[in-house]
Amino acid sequence: MTGDQSLAADAERLARVVLSCGVEPGDGRTSSLVRQIGAVRTLEDLLVPKSDSCLAERLEQVDPARRLEQAAKCGIRFLVPGDPEWPTPLDQLDDAITDQGVGGTPPGLWVRGPMPLTELATSAAVVGSRTASVYGMEVTRGLCDRVAAAGVPVVSGGAIGIDFVAHDATLGAGGTTAAVLACGVDRVYPAQNRPLLTHLAAEYAVISEQPPGSAPTRPRFLARNRLIAALTRGTVLVEAALRSGALSTAAWAEALNRPVMGVPGPVTSYTSQGVNQWLREGRATVVSDGAEVLELIGESGEHLVDVRRGERRPRDTLGPVDRQVLEWVPVGAPASVDSIARLASLHIRQTEAALQRLLTKRFVRYEEGGWRLAPDT
Amino acid sequence: MTGDQSLAADAERLARVVLSCGVEPGDGRTSSLVRQIGAVRTLEDLLVPKSDSCLAERLEQVDPARRLEQAAKCGIRFLVPGDPEWPTPLDQLDDAITDQGVGGTPPGLWVRGPMPLTELATSAAVVGSRTASVYGMEVTRGLCDRVAAAGVPVVSGGAIGIDFVAHDATLGAGGTTAAVLACGVDRVYPAQNRPLLTHLAAEYAVISEQPPGSAPTRPRFLARNRLIAALTRGTVLVEAALRSGALSTAAWAEALNRPVMGVPGPVTSYTSQGVNQWLREGRATVVSDGAEVLELIGESGEHLVDVRRGERRPRDTLGPVDRQVLEWVPVGAPASVDSIARLASLHIRQTEAALQRLLTKRFVRYEEGGWRLAPDT
Repeated sequence: MTGDQSLAADAERLARVVLSCGVEPGDGRTSSLVRQIGAVRTLEDLLVPKSDSCLAERLEQVDPARRLEQAAKCGIRFLVPGDPEWPTPLDQLDDAITDQGVGGTPPGLWVRGPMPLTELATSAAVVGSRTASVYGMEVTRGLCDRVAAAGVPVVSGGAIGIDFVAHDATLGAGGTTAAVLACGVDRVYPAQNRPLLTHLAAEYAVISEQPPGSAPTRPRFLARNRLIAALTRGTVLVEAALRSGALSTAAWAEALNRPVMGVPGPVTSYTSQGVNQWLREGRATVVSDGAEVLELIGESGEHLVDVRRGERRPRDTLGPVDRQVLEWVPVGAPASVDSIARLASLHIRQTEAALQRLLTKRFVRYEEGGWRLAPDT
Repeated sequence: MTGDQSLAADAERLARVVLSCGVEPGDGRTSSLVRQIGAVRTLEDLLVPKSDSCLAERLEQVDPARRLEQAAKCGIRFLVPGDPEWPTPLDQLDDAITDQGVGGTPPGLWVRGPMPLTELATSAAVVGSRTASVYGMEVTRGLCDRVAAAGVPVVSGGAIGIDFVAHDATLGAGGTTAAVLACGVDRVYPAQNRPLLTHLAAEYAVISEQPPGSAPTRPRFLARNRLIAALTRGTVLVEAALRSGALSTAAWAEALNRPVMGVPGPVTSYTSQGVNQWLREGRATVVSDGAEVLELIGESGEHLVDVRRGERRPRDTLGPVDRQVLEWVPVGAPASVDSIARLASLHIRQTEAALQRLLTKRFVRYEEGGWRLAPDT
């Protein structure tokens, strides 16, 4: 890089810090502008007082160099596109902007923790209700355990409920996990997850497009969800009520053409209604465990799952004649050897011998002068 | 009808009685022959002793007129294609024959009970595990209750578990229901369902392609399943383990291009594994209740379901300014009016007034010198 190029890159980075601090996350219009004309010129454009004088005022107040310095003191780095650690799958957000103008690639990411974000290239998002059921938490635990064992990182939102279990189970399995927050990465929300978030910030990664110090608000949660979807290869909905925020993460994954997976749950369970609806509408694929998640997010052929077939039954071990005879032994009232032989189109002697073998193996019973199936055959 | 035509029709009917008594159900080869050359000529063909001399012998022993007479004495009628009561959707089985030669339209149906089978034209099949869970039985009950209330008959297999609840709940809701058996309609299998089957035979209909007196065997259950699928507009799988017979009914519905619906269940539940797998493979559509079943089996536009949206939230009743302000009130640590006004791009006075209204309505709290969301907003 020449000196001029390096200066230009610095200016671009600083402009991105200002945009990150002054523009609310998920502002698709700003994101599109940055993509077209770069961050420096976008910022110049926004600083000309227009209808939104508040915005210009907010942007003017930001001292980007000081913000970077303060962040660095707290062990927080700021990544921009082009940085070696920048997670390139995020760039697909350029093309994901809703009719309401929400979306787009963020100007940068604030990250706390030693894990390089490039490690998330093969990751899966596991999200769900804060008000999770015992069922949901149990399934999340098993699923993340399996995903982590395959070396696939788990990304979630650091919330209580399914998010917490997803992070916790992944850590328990010796896996890698990162939390994407709606507030600054120096803040702890929700408070009861302080030990978890502190541990992730110390050993893995806590990520936000919001600058340090920012408070979590509803629009910021919704904007945050697009990052969870965009950073990962696919999104697993474990439990989600009909208006759960987890469905917004799933909708972003759908918009990005990443697999959306849903764990089916009882139709009588409030927290499974949203997932079951997505399954009904064909917007999510049923997954029952981590192996099925790996199959759907892996490179093709990478994590193939055996189709579930049910266990092998004792019946499968019988020879052809015995099996043929067994087919015609009634489940209800006993039948004579004659009638079974006739139905099976076999000789009586052959049938008799087969019935004796089946009796020894407890497939059939001799009762009231006839043959019938043993229970549970 | 001329005298000759009537005689020919009688001969055809009698030949079908013989085939029904002598050929095992679901014999696709015989069914195809009957379709091509009629029952009389098919029977002549089968009576020429060939490799299968047992079959010819069996057929010779049948006295069809006597069989019909005996059946009539027990209140059992024999229906053949062309009869006004013949359920024509069954004829689609002509084209549903597996590679193993199983399938085809049966030569006739033995029916006990006053309900004309034409009433099944709008019916739904509800099938599932004999070893049903409390969850499965509860869902079956609610689902059949709703389907019955819409005047849609429910068809099932008269077994214990899901089948029993499907019949029973439909009766409880004042609906119409019929059982299709793998044994003769004069027999009771399973024995514990005697009261149910007796009631259905007296007030509704019990159906079988097997002649009276026949015992239930495994191949007959599998053949019977195709009738359940073919008599109905669609098949609902409530609970089914991976090798459940209910999946064979679903496979027949699939082969007939009728909707296959599945009630999702916990991935940890043995009896939901088969259903969840069908959902995963896209072979069944998720249904959560009877209304969704009605929508899928109805004429298009007949039973439209409102998309589940979750209940209306109190938030939805707010005016635009209040809602705008509420969006920016943090969920975590309290924020000042200034900071909320800045984020919402509103004047401080406007923001202050909105916050007061939101306080009255208990959407927000004033704490430690700032504003934050009330829990559960």
